[in-house]
Amino acid sequence: MTPISDHLDRVLATVAPLPPREVPLADAWDRRIAEPVRALVPIPLWRSSSMDGYAVRYDDVASADDAPVTLRVVADIPAGSDLDPALAPGDAARIMTGAVLPTDADTIVQLEHTDRLDPLAPVSESVEVRRAPSRGLFVRGIGDDLATGDLVAGAGTLTTAGVLAAVSSAGHGTLRVHRAPRVTVIATGSELVAPGEPVRRGQIPDANSLMVAALVRRAGGEVDAVAQVGDDPAELESALARAGGSDVVVLTGGVSAGAYDPVKQVFDGSRDVTFTSVSMQPGKPQAFGTLPGGAVLFGLPGNPVSAWVSFHVFVRPALLAMQGAPDGEVRLAPVPGRAGADWGTPPGRTQILPARLSVSGGVLTATPVHALGSKSHLTGSLALAGGYAVVPAEVERVQAGDAVDVVLIGADLPLAAGEDGV
Amino acid sequence: MTPISDHLDRVLATVAPLPPREVPLADAWDRRIAEPVRALVPIPLWRSSSMDGYAVRYDDVASADDAPVTLRVVADIPAGSDLDPALAPGDAARIMTGAVLPTDADTIVQLEHTDRLDPLAPVSESVEVRRAPSRGLFVRGIGDDLATGDLVAGAGTLTTAGVLAAVSSAGHGTLRVHRAPRVTVIATGSELVAPGEPVRRGQIPDANSLMVAALVRRAGGEVDAVAQVGDDPAELESALARAGGSDVVVLTGGVSAGAYDPVKQVFDGSRDVTFTSVSMQPGKPQAFGTLPGGAVLFGLPGNPVSAWVSFHVFVRPALLAMQGAPDGEVRLAPVPGRAGADWGTPPGRTQILPARLSVSGGVLTATPVHALGSKSHLTGSLALAGGYAVVPAEVERVQAGDAVDVVLIGADLPLAAGEDGV
Repeated sequence: MTPISDHLDRVLATVAPLPPREVPLADAWDRRIAEPVRALVPIPLWRSSSMDGYAVRYDDVASADDAPVTLRVVADIPAGSDLDPALAPGDAARIMTGAVLPTDADTIVQLEHTDRLDPLAPVSESVEVRRAPSRGLFVRGIGDDLATGDLVAGAGTLTTAGVLAAVSSAGHGTLRVHRAPRVTVIATGSELVAPGEPVRRGQIPDANSLMVAALVRRAGGEVDAVAQVGDDPAELESALARAGGSDVVVLTGGVSAGAYDPVKQVFDGSRDVTFTSVSMQPGKPQAFGTLPGGAVLFGLPGNPVSAWVSFHVFVRPALLAMQGAPDGEVRLAPVPGRAGADWGTPPGRTQILPARLSVSGGVLTATPVHALGSKSHLTGSLALAGGYAVVPAEVERVQAGDAVDVVLIGADLPLAAGEDGV
Repeated sequence: MTPISDHLDRVLATVAPLPPREVPLADAWDRRIAEPVRALVPIPLWRSSSMDGYAVRYDDVASADDAPVTLRVVADIPAGSDLDPALAPGDAARIMTGAVLPTDADTIVQLEHTDRLDPLAPVSESVEVRRAPSRGLFVRGIGDDLATGDLVAGAGTLTTAGVLAAVSSAGHGTLRVHRAPRVTVIATGSELVAPGEPVRRGQIPDANSLMVAALVRRAGGEVDAVAQVGDDPAELESALARAGGSDVVVLTGGVSAGAYDPVKQVFDGSRDVTFTSVSMQPGKPQAFGTLPGGAVLFGLPGNPVSAWVSFHVFVRPALLAMQGAPDGEVRLAPVPGRAGADWGTPPGRTQILPARLSVSGGVLTATPVHALGSKSHLTGSLALAGGYAVVPAEVERVQAGDAVDVVLIGADLPLAAGEDGV
């Protein structure tokens, strides 16, 4: 059997980042930046006030603690104004938060330290300064944050809200990002009926189509099409032919060696798609390769739990790599945790166990979503999985309290459930 | 000044979950379930085989370890088949993984323990069983996972891929979920120009519109419209009038007491929108209330860092509550961490410090994204923030190594950066 890491290496050697394209920042959310972004302008861009008040020459007001100083008000500067009034000694300008300081000013006196407390009053001819500021108080300097040319975000960075704000402030109106992989999802299996439809003996609701589509979206992919086909090689070939525009095709089911396994039949003897027994449980039978049009093909086992596990271990990393995520983020990295229960493990294979996760006292605990452990038919319990435990092949039994590697798959881990915060 | 928790309580007392609606499972991803979902059918739905092999009567093969047993093959059952062949003593049926067991069979003999190793060969008239299975081996029982009536997912559960798979397997074709809050984003400020456009003295690129829109999407909201208006109350009123269809309006800027603060001017004296000085830094000036059409209004301070912090502390919880998230997930809960550097804190206010996060040896470390700390003009450094530190008002200075409360905001924390896994 092939070790998980060898099969994943092969997957990752096959895929490459999709070509970048330049998009307006408003369309660039939640993608990966294709090349390092540097500041075109400094942040802040101007020397500005961080307080409603009066822009002054510090030397004029240095003694205001001893006796109030009266200044002549020569201008009123709102945020966004291009005013740059000359300030002679003894002059001041009323200034609002965010407005650019007059070239002649070096310090802001906040309203509260003057006799003109009401910011909504018409600007007056003079202002009395009653307390001395420190020199430069409430002045934001040009480039305090970033200088022109500074790195704003490296290649591979995810365009979060904060990244977009930074890139915009740094003078950019567009970004070069990798486009989302387009994915066709095909569930195979004559036993599958659409969710909610009546079943006759032997049939079951198709859980894989919508599960894989949701996993694709969660991993940043775009779902081109979702199809369901029976155990008929011709039907599968026709569905594959319709997936021509996709970058990736994810099949579920039909990868075992059974008499009716259509994926196996369609690609048997293919040079471009191979069938691998991977040393993991669930998820042993894996098909992987490329289609004639260049799309990457994954054939995952048909049990929903196996497909769920296989997706996280093999497909998600590929989708991340195609989006240009850095190496360190492509593979889901395990974190140290503790077993929350006893459970059995399969002999000679790495166990990937869907687990409920909880954190208490700084300890991450993973508990099987079902008492039957990692058996692949426990689809109902997948609802509870916040991640999975990874148990090495040589471990025969896990006991409550044992150290286990845990992979978190979602953003919604109740890291400190019950403890409200801000 | 109003404590953060008091202001948040007021926000959360104002909002309520949006009306649920029933949608096909394919359209139900990434929403909150409106009412508990119970299994309509057991999972598994049938007594089925978990292995390619032969369905047998255990008593016929119990002695196969002593001497091979030859059985008559009376049927061939693919997955999805409705066949239920009668098995007399001495009879077997070839069966594929996932297929329903004949009523008369109780055990599966895997292919490898017979003389018929090739699953693709035509079914034969007889099979020799060479090793005795245990009784019930490779048989999945009806309801092994969930029984009819068992809870699949509680109210408020996020519809992850695993939840959708479980709900489908439990017999549902639709789900009642809370719809996404529709949000209008309006950035106010005469100084703002569109990202990438040329600026004259005093102008800056608008970072808030796209940042808030991205934060809304990240929190599960739907962005109805994004607008940018100058410091003109009439312009703002007209933009607000166009937001009639939204559940939430998020304004940035214009909430201070300055002469040109349009939010303050439009709502001054309003009974439905109030201005609050919240005891936090950044983010002290907050406007909150409701518009005549019923939309919830947030007026956040205009500095991008202040707006970013305010969004996480007040707007995100409101959007989560409107989606029907359970109380424990509405407020971002802090986790224990350590300070990665020294930093100063504002006197008398809770500090919300955007922070770079890292984990090493199980310890979460938070480091200010910029050496200047939580000052609100450091927009460029927001690109680095994976969360924020919460420092109580009474703390005057944080030193490297101090225990700090940390809030994680993203799914992309490099929890074990550099350490590859599966």
